[in-house]
Amino acid sequence: MKVFVKGYYTTKFGELWEKSLSDLIEEAIRGVLKETGLKLKDISAIFVGNMLAGVLDENLLLSAKINEILENSGIPIFRFEAACASGGVAFYNALQFSKAGKGRNVLVLGVEKMTDFCTEDVTSALASALSGEEQLAGLTFPGAYALMARFYLEKYGYTEENLAYISVKNHFFGSLNPKAHFQKKITLEQVLSSPYIAEPLKILDSSPISDGASAIILSIERTKVQVASCETATDTISLLKRKNLDEMLAVKKAGEKAFESAGVEAQDIEVAEVHDCFSIAEILVMEALGFWRKGEGGEKAKAFDLENPFSQRPVVNTSGGLKSAGHPVGATGVKQIGEIFLQLSGKAEGRQVEGVKVGLAQNTAGSGGLSVVTILKR
Amino acid sequence: MKVFVKGYYTTKFGELWEKSLSDLIEEAIRGVLKETGLKLKDISAIFVGNMLAGVLDENLLLSAKINEILENSGIPIFRFEAACASGGVAFYNALQFSKAGKGRNVLVLGVEKMTDFCTEDVTSALASALSGEEQLAGLTFPGAYALMARFYLEKYGYTEENLAYISVKNHFFGSLNPKAHFQKKITLEQVLSSPYIAEPLKILDSSPISDGASAIILSIERTKVQVASCETATDTISLLKRKNLDEMLAVKKAGEKAFESAGVEAQDIEVAEVHDCFSIAEILVMEALGFWRKGEGGEKAKAFDLENPFSQRPVVNTSGGLKSAGHPVGATGVKQIGEIFLQLSGKAEGRQVEGVKVGLAQNTAGSGGLSVVTILKR
Repeated sequence: MKVFVKGYYTTKFGELWEKSLSDLIEEAIRGVLKETGLKLKDISAIFVGNMLAGVLDENLLLSAKINEILENSGIPIFRFEAACASGGVAFYNALQFSKAGKGRNVLVLGVEKMTDFCTEDVTSALASALSGEEQLAGLTFPGAYALMARFYLEKYGYTEENLAYISVKNHFFGSLNPKAHFQKKITLEQVLSSPYIAEPLKILDSSPISDGASAIILSIERTKVQVASCETATDTISLLKRKNLDEMLAVKKAGEKAFESAGVEAQDIEVAEVHDCFSIAEILVMEALGFWRKGEGGEKAKAFDLENPFSQRPVVNTSGGLKSAGHPVGATGVKQIGEIFLQLSGKAEGRQVEGVKVGLAQNTAGSGGLSVVTILKR
Repeated sequence: MKVFVKGYYTTKFGELWEKSLSDLIEEAIRGVLKETGLKLKDISAIFVGNMLAGVLDENLLLSAKINEILENSGIPIFRFEAACASGGVAFYNALQFSKAGKGRNVLVLGVEKMTDFCTEDVTSALASALSGEEQLAGLTFPGAYALMARFYLEKYGYTEENLAYISVKNHFFGSLNPKAHFQKKITLEQVLSSPYIAEPLKILDSSPISDGASAIILSIERTKVQVASCETATDTISLLKRKNLDEMLAVKKAGEKAFESAGVEAQDIEVAEVHDCFSIAEILVMEALGFWRKGEGGEKAKAFDLENPFSQRPVVNTSGGLKSAGHPVGATGVKQIGEIFLQLSGKAEGRQVEGVKVGLAQNTAGSGGLSVVTILKR
């Protein structure tokens, strides 16, 4: 059965101190219903991606909590946790529900409320998605990605400057996205002179701690944008058990399956949202998906042309990516697919890439332990 | 597409101090593969129900952790959290994956490791599935079900004795199940003289804190036992917002949908596993599913005949239920469906109900905020 994207809504991402988890959930659901002209009774089920409400706030069973916000219609609601890929995994399962013929319209929601907690607690909670040994040894996600970055830079003879271009690009696009956490451009010099958080990664190589919620409605009724494929794969939880620190195997496997299911190749993709939790992550993902050859990423990142920002193919992270649009972890995977939907339906306003027909969204969990790759086409 | 149960394995439930969460996961997966004669490469995806690893142990992204235990095949793995219905919700989504044609064999795993933590911490972690207001007010699950029990007993003029029969029955069946946490019978007098944990509920009205893991393989290849239906519904998270404290609306709605989808009625069900986290819960669920009329439950519970324990229809909780078989929360929903599979395939050994063809499993989240009802038939 063919499944289509009917509509998308996202709250602004950022430090939304005046909004609770419930407020964000309600805004995103009401927003996407308004956008699509649907009522709650038209929705067969809700699939929710959320990582941290349990660990940070002893807040579980979101299914019933969301049903209560929605005036107790009794609708089936499911919550998924796959660390930073919780949103992508919710989308994947919503797609299977649609394909199984369980309902006409399905709502996918990603949500995270992070800024009510101090940075130490959030960093520790995020580290729940590392292996037990890595957690006990004191590793955090900046540390994990720093190990990958150091390995990559040394292996191919790149410098921190090569990484910095990723942040410059993503902030440029973020400056065009009114929903982005940071709507401002940054310069190469600013990135390079920002303080280290885990050498060689600096604060401006890193996505922020954000609040936000994003929602998509999938439908079996034809719209302009079809879900061509959505696939997932896993890798080891531990960096230690991987053959190469610079090879994201789950991304590679999920990507290969997604290209095959959709019947397209990497060169057919015109716009992509990829998981740039740290600058190095975008480079490794672009290589794993076959957009760039192995080891070529540092050079390709540097080749981004601020004078012709829409000239590359694919154009990557027009939302601003996680770096500039923000990274409310459960919401990210949904926002990425939503941004591709906006691009393919010509609704990306100030950052529209003209005439695009095929786009891809890639969502990573943890240090690469799971990935979801989704391809949409007009 | 028709989907069948190919096999089932469960670890023993209990205080398994010598086994970690990973050990339990590995035993259940290897056990069900051996039981069905399948290899890991024959499995298309794994659907995992787990409630507490995040809250109790900062242990998230089980998908990648399980993939690592399974020698890094990269298989898609998804984790579901719906409090005590995490296992049922994992089963529900695995079924949609099968019906969507995504794979021949799918593995459903439920797992919980609870006894490594002190009772206060486990009680508090479980309370994450109450509303924020209920948590702040100090309500726990024994307290929530005590409110329901008090309401029910007063409304219909029953006494604590009516509740106690449920525990006597479930311990009788548990004494026949070698995988049960408690394999011993108890008497009415023992239940009635056990200490209160939240009046009118006593310790012997309550399911224990247990460790355990259960696994089922669903297949599109015909076996003796078909999944006739699996449905879910939600209710409010808060007791306060319900019209009647003794009416489990999510159970009722999920049950009505499941009976309709399967084309059977309550009187067709010959064996049932229902969610008896507390004795009152079994009574309210039996009424909500239409097995017993509203208000009749106290009397029906008392009518259980220890001399003819298999004479009622349906025979309820032959596994011992949560009360006697134990309640490793993420595993419970999977074990319930597994027990019905054993009964329908004639493999329930010392507790086999002869000649049964249709069975039902009902799994509750929290104080009734979500329920999953599954019907299997020969």
